[in-house]
Amino acid sequence: MPHEPRNPSFADDIKQSFAKQTMMNLIGAELTRVEPGIVEISLPYRADITQQHGYLHAGIVTTIADTASGYAAYSLMPPRAEVLSVEFKVNLLRPAQGEMFRALAEVVKSGRTLTVVRADVFGINRDGECELVATMLATMMCLQQ
Amino acid sequence: MPHEPRNPSFADDIKQSFAKQTMMNLIGAELTRVEPGIVEISLPYRADITQQHGYLHAGIVTTIADTASGYAAYSLMPPRAEVLSVEFKVNLLRPAQGEMFRALAEVVKSGRTLTVVRADVFGINRDGECELVATMLATMMCLQQ
Amino acid sequence: MPHEPRNPSFADDIKQSFAKQTMMNLIGAELTRVEPGIVEISLPYRADITQQHGYLHAGIVTTIADTASGYAAYSLMPPRAEVLSVEFKVNLLRPAQGEMFRALAEVVKSGRTLTVVRADVFGINRDGECELVATMLATMMCLQQ
Amino acid sequence: MPHEPRNPSFADDIKQSFAKQTMMNLIGAELTRVEPGIVEISLPYRADITQQHGYLHAGIVTTIADTASGYAAYSLMPPRAEVLSVEFKVNLLRPAQGEMFRALAEVVKSGRTLTVVRADVFGINRDGECELVATMLATMMCLQQ
Repeated sequence: MPHEPRNPSFADDIKQSFAKQTMMNLIGAELTRVEPGIVEISLPYRADITQQHGYLHAGIVTTIADTASGYAAYSLMPPRAEVLSVEFKVNLLRPAQGEMFRALAEVVKSGRTLTVVRADVFGINRDGECELVATMLATMMCLQQ
Repeated sequence: MPHEPRNPSFADDIKQSFAKQTMMNLIGAELTRVEPGIVEISLPYRADITQQHGYLHAGIVTTIADTASGYAAYSLMPPRAEVLSVEFKVNLLRPAQGEMFRALAEVVKSGRTLTVVRADVFGINRDGECELVATMLATMMCLQQ
Repeated sequence: MPHEPRNPSFADDIKQSFAKQTMMNLIGAELTRVEPGIVEISLPYRADITQQHGYLHAGIVTTIADTASGYAAYSLMPPRAEVLSVEFKVNLLRPAQGEMFRALAEVVKSGRTLTVVRADVFGINRDGECELVATMLATMMCLQQ
Repeated sequence: MPHEPRNPSFADDIKQSFAKQTMMNLIGAELTRVEPGIVEISLPYRADITQQHGYLHAGIVTTIADTASGYAAYSLMPPRAEVLSVEFKVNLLRPAQGEMFRALAEVVKSGRTLTVVRADVFGINRDGECELVATMLATMMCLQQ
């Protein structure tokens, strides 16, 4: 079922908002896909965002999944709305290893106030092999101005 | 109900493990309380770990709550165990604002394989006023070597 | 922090609404505590609501926790509001055994649109000993008419 | 990615276990699909399992999703294992209305100890139209005997 955007400039608005997230800049995350109801964020591995075993920190896995989920929800909201993370649950399926990580979020149900989003985070090794390392189910809220 | 540690050097082990988490160093988080079944992590506000409105990023709120929860679980595990985050759910209750943030985790149920932990994250302003900004319910796993 | 009700007849409204839940009647659940921000539901054990090992079905544990959480949220909503379960997460901590079960829900954060509630479910044996069998973290929504 | 069963009699074992769940019998739920990693449960609407507005109770939506998820996980476990629900999170997306409900669960990641499962619950009206009313993300545990 295709998603219908209500804000014609959603893609530009998302890029501008993403640029204001200092956290995305700090860790080197990039917005690599912005479509109605679908957003992807990519993050190259770095040694300074790991947990005690050298894998990507679960908090960073969550950070890119949450950001992708928030913007996937936002892409279907009306102009001048703001998006807020209400809650999310993350299952960490495998050690988050790889040279690159991608969080791919897609809207499950878009409502007037609440939007439910699913996001998968993949770890990609130097041979391009891709493994699902985490999956998120999130609730986002639309704040009208 | 007091928690009984099975690893006499749990506090030192947690400090050593925490020091290996490069992510904690990157954001300036500190281990400020380590007791059987209870761990607290503190994080001063910084402008480089925010979302688009200048509040602490939900991923950072999650990062400190997850780390505190993992070590709270670990504090009750046997010697030479490893702890792994299985999954967590976070409710973001208010904008994460403050000069300082504290994630306080306490074990709800400690089992042989799985441990369930609750963590609250507080934002503290310059007057020392404290507000609950998020709450986590997490499942941690014990890996025996 | 005490909870301030905005609907003076919240207790009667909850009792009337509870009576309309045919599910509560089917399983024999009762409303045993209704205070601002706090609701308890009690359920005697029955052999016809179990899973394959004879323990209370996780779905029934969830049913009483969800209902208690919904009404705990509702107790702080304005008159003529409706409450809706947005989502919940449940950790099942032990086999749900006992002669009696109690779901005790308390509001964590009450907002204009969303309310976050925590609920614990206890199993109580014939000696009156009480064990925590599950814990829920739930998001409820206020619908104004 | 196809799922590989390790228990050649998984389908029979699931049917026998399902028949022992008195709760499934009480509400009239049926096992309508059993494949490696995939299980579906169907439930005709009944007026005695509703909440206060006459919709299927969220606890019943959860009950069929949890049972389907547990058996989807179980279908990939070794012979003589037992399955246990560790935790689940459910997002309730729309009022659960329909003449028939189906919970369709599929394994996301099957591990030696833990299995992560996703389940969708659909409401189907008299014209056969199908709507997603809830989605679950669950963690199941394998107990070896």
